[in-house]
Amino acid sequence: MHTTVVEVGPRDGLQNEERVLPADVKIELIERSVAAGITRIEAVSFVNPARVPQMADAEEVMAGVPRRGDVSYIGLVLNRRGLDRALAAGVDEVNAVVVATDTFCVRNQGVTTDQAMEAFDAIAKAAADAGVRCSVTIAAAFGCPFEGETPPERVAEIARRAHAAGAHEVALADTIGVGVPGQVRDLTRRVRAAAPGTPLRFHFHNTRNTGYANALAAVAEGVTVLDAATGGFGGCPFAPAATGNIATEDLLYALHREGGSTGIDATAVAATGAWLGEHLGKPAPALLGRAGPFPGIAG
Amino acid sequence: MHTTVVEVGPRDGLQNEERVLPADVKIELIERSVAAGITRIEAVSFVNPARVPQMADAEEVMAGVPRRGDVSYIGLVLNRRGLDRALAAGVDEVNAVVVATDTFCVRNQGVTTDQAMEAFDAIAKAAADAGVRCSVTIAAAFGCPFEGETPPERVAEIARRAHAAGAHEVALADTIGVGVPGQVRDLTRRVRAAAPGTPLRFHFHNTRNTGYANALAAVAEGVTVLDAATGGFGGCPFAPAATGNIATEDLLYALHREGGSTGIDATAVAATGAWLGEHLGKPAPALLGRAGPFPGIAG
Repeated sequence: MHTTVVEVGPRDGLQNEERVLPADVKIELIERSVAAGITRIEAVSFVNPARVPQMADAEEVMAGVPRRGDVSYIGLVLNRRGLDRALAAGVDEVNAVVVATDTFCVRNQGVTTDQAMEAFDAIAKAAADAGVRCSVTIAAAFGCPFEGETPPERVAEIARRAHAAGAHEVALADTIGVGVPGQVRDLTRRVRAAAPGTPLRFHFHNTRNTGYANALAAVAEGVTVLDAATGGFGGCPFAPAATGNIATEDLLYALHREGGSTGIDATAVAATGAWLGEHLGKPAPALLGRAGPFPGIAG
Repeated sequence: MHTTVVEVGPRDGLQNEERVLPADVKIELIERSVAAGITRIEAVSFVNPARVPQMADAEEVMAGVPRRGDVSYIGLVLNRRGLDRALAAGVDEVNAVVVATDTFCVRNQGVTTDQAMEAFDAIAKAAADAGVRCSVTIAAAFGCPFEGETPPERVAEIARRAHAAGAHEVALADTIGVGVPGQVRDLTRRVRAAAPGTPLRFHFHNTRNTGYANALAAVAEGVTVLDAATGGFGGCPFAPAATGNIATEDLLYALHREGGSTGIDATAVAATGAWLGEHLGKPAPALLGRAGPFPGIAG
């Protein structure tokens, strides 16, 4: 089984860090990721720089990334204004965000879930007009820090609308890391039924140590695209205690040891995770880089 | 599905820590565990105090633990001498260790795997004579830091011999945290075939972030007993980079959110993990205690 691991470290991995990295370090992170074999990268977000200063230099980063035919760069957008910036910066794909619960959606992007879906309709149409792939991430799909349990019917309904709006892919995000494999299976089935034929991607955080179990559960359901962040950094500035993404290197270790392929060098990513930790002034939450060598590490 | 979580923090959680805790703190750890609802505890090991000074006060700890009819205390032993100490100290069960690879077995306990199995025969017989339950942990069942891959046939053969020797339970330990769920499923089937009717227990370390996925995979295979250590501390003094056990509190979170029952209060265990971290002078690797509250935490 081949899994496409989407590197979200340059965006989700850095957007919640106190230390704002300069553009050249972000570009080096992306260069290292590409050299390790990563082919899809959420490189930047085009959001309000006053609210997320870590991403203020999105245009500068996009201008500096290595352009190759086999690597696709994703820009995160929340509205039409962000989309216009993303298109001008030359992204290969845009990824919009709709938070599944109203309280969190208003805190994250100033609109209700319904309003965010309306914005997505406009984003998807404009992206299609521009010939750019457009996916949507349903945030807080497994639980909300403000509202508690997220009804899975609500997630399926957002997926249905995204499908109708022409989303090229739907991602389900456990933004605050509360999910478990049973939820992965349930949501996979619901969303496949609601958005038939639309590829499914998952985005896990390891806040309560369930992220890797969730990722493997998704793969067992036939999901072939997973987000991860080198070093396991990350979190959401607008949710309390939303800690790191699952780490790319640790996900690769699990996938490779399970007999899967990714085309990505886990050892190289682990080295990048340690390097990134030096730039951020804190050790990477990822464990592969700290663990002793073992012959089973697929390079 | 009910899972019995065996608390191994007082033994495996502490045996590799630089700071040697006094007996009264170990006893408090055990008291807190019992108060949280834990009913099986690997409290001590009866090994050479010159080699594992963290466990030198095993008799003192056993003399101080709360005695209740519904709580079973396990003492780890490696040989007949350890067994005699364990019986004199009044343990409810003994757990012997056989490392599945010779290099690691010699480093861990000074004998080859074959010699350790011979020692187990004697331990099992003497324990039966004393009317004490006797289980065996097959260490390095998923991989060896010195020999690499552990042949699963070797693990099954040890289980077969343990079954023949009268082991009341066989535990498979991923001592260095290299395993993945596919191995859990494979070993479960092999060991069940080799030791028919003998209850199976698993012991996972989260060294490469696969420990919780492995635990849930075991439960999915029908395994009902799992080791874990409060706070996620732990490791083996005789293996390089063998880091923490899966944390009891994080395992409970996953099990409870999956709809399972344990009879144990996850929030209380998380508080004990933080308390233990203060005594050890380092933060607990467990994540539940650091994560924000979420209504889904089964107490």
